[in-house]
Amino acid sequence: MSYKNFPMVPRVVFGRGSFNQSGEILDPKRLNVNAPFIYLVDDVFKNNTWLLSRIPLAYDDKIIYISAAKEPKTSQVDTLVEEIILKTKDKPSGIIGIGGGSILDLAKAVSIMITNEGEAKDYQGWDLVKNEAVYHVGIPTLAGTGAEVSRTAVLTGPDKKLGINSDFTPFDQVILDSELTKDVPINQWFYTGMDCYIHCIESLNGTFLNAFSESYGNTALGLCKEVFLENKLSEVESQEKLMMASWHGGMSIAYSQVGVAHAMSYGLAYLLGTKHGVGNCIVFNHLEEYYPIGVKLFKEMIKVHNVEIPQNVCANLSDEDFNIMINIALNLEPLWENALGKSWKNIITPKKLKELYQKM
Amino acid sequence: MSYKNFPMVPRVVFGRGSFNQSGEILDPKRLNVNAPFIYLVDDVFKNNTWLLSRIPLAYDDKIIYISAAKEPKTSQVDTLVEEIILKTKDKPSGIIGIGGGSILDLAKAVSIMITNEGEAKDYQGWDLVKNEAVYHVGIPTLAGTGAEVSRTAVLTGPDKKLGINSDFTPFDQVILDSELTKDVPINQWFYTGMDCYIHCIESLNGTFLNAFSESYGNTALGLCKEVFLENKLSEVESQEKLMMASWHGGMSIAYSQVGVAHAMSYGLAYLLGTKHGVGNCIVFNHLEEYYPIGVKLFKEMIKVHNVEIPQNVCANLSDEDFNIMINIALNLEPLWENALGKSWKNIITPKKLKELYQKM
Repeated sequence: MSYKNFPMVPRVVFGRGSFNQSGEILDPKRLNVNAPFIYLVDDVFKNNTWLLSRIPLAYDDKIIYISAAKEPKTSQVDTLVEEIILKTKDKPSGIIGIGGGSILDLAKAVSIMITNEGEAKDYQGWDLVKNEAVYHVGIPTLAGTGAEVSRTAVLTGPDKKLGINSDFTPFDQVILDSELTKDVPINQWFYTGMDCYIHCIESLNGTFLNAFSESYGNTALGLCKEVFLENKLSEVESQEKLMMASWHGGMSIAYSQVGVAHAMSYGLAYLLGTKHGVGNCIVFNHLEEYYPIGVKLFKEMIKVHNVEIPQNVCANLSDEDFNIMINIALNLEPLWENALGKSWKNIITPKKLKELYQKM
Repeated sequence: MSYKNFPMVPRVVFGRGSFNQSGEILDPKRLNVNAPFIYLVDDVFKNNTWLLSRIPLAYDDKIIYISAAKEPKTSQVDTLVEEIILKTKDKPSGIIGIGGGSILDLAKAVSIMITNEGEAKDYQGWDLVKNEAVYHVGIPTLAGTGAEVSRTAVLTGPDKKLGINSDFTPFDQVILDSELTKDVPINQWFYTGMDCYIHCIESLNGTFLNAFSESYGNTALGLCKEVFLENKLSEVESQEKLMMASWHGGMSIAYSQVGVAHAMSYGLAYLLGTKHGVGNCIVFNHLEEYYPIGVKLFKEMIKVHNVEIPQNVCANLSDEDFNIMINIALNLEPLWENALGKSWKNIITPKKLKELYQKM
């Protein structure tokens, strides 16, 4: 048996208002005046001077606004890299992602593709990256998916939704400032937070579980319950705790794996472009059979926050559509093995998956 | 307000038997055939072929056995560094510590002093280290103190017990193989584990507490209770969970601070050479006034495991002795501020400390 040698984020700042320290953190990392910092910023902040005025721009540093309305694509990474290389005099000093999981994953992928030849789709998979990425920093403005600690940059490519999983993927620096999450709309807050909750349920109920993942998973699960179920926290406490839940949930799956909800949600994302957080919720809502206690609590959380989970998203799909989703989902073998054990193929068949998708 | 930019261990392997992966982890880090790996190994393993046969020695690699009977000293670091520099053809490829907190702290300090001029005592304090350390790896064989994740290497010098706290101190790689802790004698197991428990109590009850430290502290505290209080785990589960408790406990104090027990225990260590784990227990046993619930549970744990905490260690001390301990303890201002707030000097006086020490 061989264990993973997991690369952790080597630097982290935590604290309300710590975003103000970006300048002192980045300054020593500037390679020269022609090597700018490139900020990839969620375009919801486009006119937000509260945030933008604190980005420490100097020399040729540049902000590129990115819509996170759709799941990030490999082609989008290639376009960004081309734009950056064409317009900067020297290789950038760093790529800084400011946003939710989509923006953070784009920042990770762009930092890798600046120093690696070919197209982003060539690197979807495990350990295909050859050269070290440029310095990259993650500053989450949403909490739940754990992109800030993960070893992957999840992208939708021409023929699959799959992450660039590599030792060069994790951020060199993360800044955890919960104040940046204060204006997230409630639905998005809930869906993203549930991504963390679902990570915990999938990790803690998986066959790959071990004491490392279990300790992180229980921590994140406890925090999710405080935030979404007990509902007794102040706004600030809730934002801080959800940020830590995201962090610990990400660490939990780093050393185990996700499960049924993630596998099926990837199918929805590939075919329908369903965003990851809400996609997980749509799927998880119908997984009582696999995660009975987890789904029961999930439904209570929906009630507490009066959130709507989309229904009937598969109502008008053709057989061919179902087959596309089923193939994407079944391809994620480690997720199924974690969820259901080595003989998962006896339990999950294309027919079974179709029945499940038809409920959604 | 400025927040710490905390350096985390950038690589971690977790798993029973993962020590077998040392070779594949270290091989790529060998700089050349004249640049050996130096293993600092607790001398309790001197005739232990089960462990020693798995140390992947090659070329000029060397094992140096070290007694952990006494607290590590700055002079010991200087002697080790001199020996290593004199006997190796080239600067070592890496320093690997295999042992408890004392050995791990020595390994961290030696790796720093190989690339920094002067004596170890010159670097006791915060951020005094100028040059990056040589590659260093921590392989704990005891669990509790959290030396594997900390940013310090605690040493007793000619005039103080104080850590080398720096961004270059943390290990580059940690291997968490709980099997290495299987033969720890029960007293040592308990004292070291209680170091973790006391970290949690001091962190969670401190004024420096924040959501980051709280999440790690609660995790470690929960694991300590499972291991030491509920006492329902298998041996293997207990070893794995205590290893994770140590890890999370270390992370918790990384972003907050320890408190009364650690401050006073440093006094005992400096004057009497009391080892850190047992020293913390001796002190904590008399701190009901500051940590009422924590001390109550601690006494229950002592009962469950039928462990003896040394009594009357201060029985024959002179006034001068007490003053030495009191000065060492009072000097650790951040610990007192964390424990008792900004006006701690109104609460803790030399007289009060003497009364407490006299009970121990």
